[in-house]
Amino acid sequence: MNPELERIAKKEGVRKEKLEKRTMEGSVVIVKNANREIEPLVIGSGLRTRVNANIGVSPTASTMEDEIKKADVAIEAGADALMDLSITKSSRIDRIRRKIIRHTSIPLGTVPIYQAIAENSIHDVTLETILKVIETQCRDGVDFMTIHSGITKNIVDGLKGGRVIPITSRGGCLIAAWMTKNNEENPLYAHFDEVLEILREYEVVISLGDALRPGSIVDASDSPQIQELMNLGRLNRAAKKAGVQCIIEGPGHVPLDQIAMNVRLQKTMCDNAPFYVLGPLVTDIALGHDHIAGAVGGAIAALHGADFLCYVTPREHLGLPDADDVREGVIASRIAAHAADIIKLGNKEKDLEMSEARRDLDWHRMFESAIDKEVKKKYSYLIDQEPCTMCGEYCALRIVKELFQ
Amino acid sequence: MNPELERIAKKEGVRKEKLEKRTMEGSVVIVKNANREIEPLVIGSGLRTRVNANIGVSPTASTMEDEIKKADVAIEAGADALMDLSITKSSRIDRIRRKIIRHTSIPLGTVPIYQAIAENSIHDVTLETILKVIETQCRDGVDFMTIHSGITKNIVDGLKGGRVIPITSRGGCLIAAWMTKNNEENPLYAHFDEVLEILREYEVVISLGDALRPGSIVDASDSPQIQELMNLGRLNRAAKKAGVQCIIEGPGHVPLDQIAMNVRLQKTMCDNAPFYVLGPLVTDIALGHDHIAGAVGGAIAALHGADFLCYVTPREHLGLPDADDVREGVIASRIAAHAADIIKLGNKEKDLEMSEARRDLDWHRMFESAIDKEVKKKYSYLIDQEPCTMCGEYCALRIVKELFQ
Repeated sequence: MNPELERIAKKEGVRKEKLEKRTMEGSVVIVKNANREIEPLVIGSGLRTRVNANIGVSPTASTMEDEIKKADVAIEAGADALMDLSITKSSRIDRIRRKIIRHTSIPLGTVPIYQAIAENSIHDVTLETILKVIETQCRDGVDFMTIHSGITKNIVDGLKGGRVIPITSRGGCLIAAWMTKNNEENPLYAHFDEVLEILREYEVVISLGDALRPGSIVDASDSPQIQELMNLGRLNRAAKKAGVQCIIEGPGHVPLDQIAMNVRLQKTMCDNAPFYVLGPLVTDIALGHDHIAGAVGGAIAALHGADFLCYVTPREHLGLPDADDVREGVIASRIAAHAADIIKLGNKEKDLEMSEARRDLDWHRMFESAIDKEVKKKYSYLIDQEPCTMCGEYCALRIVKELFQ
Repeated sequence: MNPELERIAKKEGVRKEKLEKRTMEGSVVIVKNANREIEPLVIGSGLRTRVNANIGVSPTASTMEDEIKKADVAIEAGADALMDLSITKSSRIDRIRRKIIRHTSIPLGTVPIYQAIAENSIHDVTLETILKVIETQCRDGVDFMTIHSGITKNIVDGLKGGRVIPITSRGGCLIAAWMTKNNEENPLYAHFDEVLEILREYEVVISLGDALRPGSIVDASDSPQIQELMNLGRLNRAAKKAGVQCIIEGPGHVPLDQIAMNVRLQKTMCDNAPFYVLGPLVTDIALGHDHIAGAVGGAIAALHGADFLCYVTPREHLGLPDADDVREGVIASRIAAHAADIIKLGNKEKDLEMSEARRDLDWHRMFESAIDKEVKKKYSYLIDQEPCTMCGEYCALRIVKELFQ
């Protein structure tokens, strides 16, 4: 057995045989580029639900410095992985990505089609351009990549009129535009084997993008979404056969009662490959508070088997998040992930510690067991106060402490 | 038929015969004190999930002015009801409550035991004192009252050692302390009929408190909680027989996978009486962000039949909420309530409106369809901007708009 895997199994508290079996089957992936010197991140069945934070400049906002700051904030708040979604016409994309890779030591993901299209135009992009970008990013040390291979010409041709929001995925719409303008099949689908060949060389994990995820709860679980998922199932098998580890991306905007089904369908169609969900958002009208709608959906998704939650920030649908939004987004997703891990893994030690600290009115331990370590800074004055201002002398915990001692 | 009920049925978009039947059966309550001139609030089966915001001074924090401000903020954010939980030794309790009643026009709830004990001591409180407070509050126009009649001496006697947090409910611990000190049965249980007699006179809804709700997820759904629920089931029947409308209060801290069961058990034991849940919080370690843990639990509870969500603010477990916390708490609970109503009632008109506005990049309509109307103020600059800073020219919605037009 891989001694690395043995060490990871120990760290994660799982049996090494089980972990090895799961990586072989593809229900667990080990995320780390062969060129990068970081602690690998394992994602999948039987492991803690992981949280990803998206950073990166947009054409109209932010600087490299801002994004490095956001990376730090996300890591401090407990993100397990970052994605650099930089998309800009300027030549900064390579520099930003390389800076983030040097600056951080958690896995980094990207969406190479962004750079391929931002540095060219939709008309000029060719398979070669895309493969070149993928190879450059692999060489730089990117650990996982969203590749939108599941969106095919026949699905896009059938989209018109059938959805409120035809495509909400940025990568998805760029590829759809390319296919429509060039009247050709999605190159990431048609030449999937060439993509895999590059990724395999650098041991980069492929995250199969859901270009057709619903952008509205009224579009959830519709034909285009499920057609793409069926493609992803086949592509997952092809990736595995080619020796490339694979994650499947999922929705999106999904009503409460369709989340469990979406997770089960992904697991069935994709041979239990790790499921990486964006949210899901359980309503479309939580504008300004989508991290809350996303935490609701994320907790339910994780409970039913989603393995990796992509955070949603309060700024979602309103603009590029700032550092505070990043922080709020990571914490909200971590709450969702942990709520599910209480059940999935029986991880309630911290909850027990918090409850005992509450019973004992021990603020130090309460702060220590909290998901958000920043709370301590803001509320440290409580340490000398015993019961808080909520109840003062009528603090139930204080009264009960006297009563039962 | 009551012409009032006919008007309400029309407003709520439900058949009047159905509403009448449900109020007769007790699965819907009409909340409004006979002495108060406000629009009644209907809560229960087949109706929108309602949201309550707690306000009120504590012995160590806040003023009447602060609490009036919080009432305004809560109402503006869309709370359906308020509870004045003021507890203080000073003589302000009556004044604050009366001021809130005059100042607002949504239903107000209270927990009379707070005043009874704050104005006396746990030793001196008698059945007469409590009944007098209840009567005064009824006369003042309080619309619903939390009465902790379900906690009985035998349950409290069995608590020792069995739970991490024996009692987390403020009212519950005050009554437990009284019972222990006086070695007598809970007067609100032993003399429940006298309580009902007063409430009936003023048409006040009784909200049967869950004094033994779990204060930690490790204590969830344990014997003390379920023993009390069984009492509440019997008390609910007694209330109905005495002509008093009844709501049942519920937990608290509940792991994700026990929420549906808790709702079903309450509905079964309490003949489908409306269920009023506090949270539930799906983890204990979301300190500083409990409104998010509460939104996760609230959405799932509401989906499975909870009718009334008591908000949880970001300040929960840390102190008395300020006006910003109140706002965040109400919005978080409204997101949870709405996410469930999408499924329970098919209420997705606003989500469709938002999605169509997004498709059309129509910021005016996006702001109009958002749950939080304040978002418009903060982001009004977007109206002249079209695609937001998230993607700029690579806005999927913009590209797709061109592609499919």
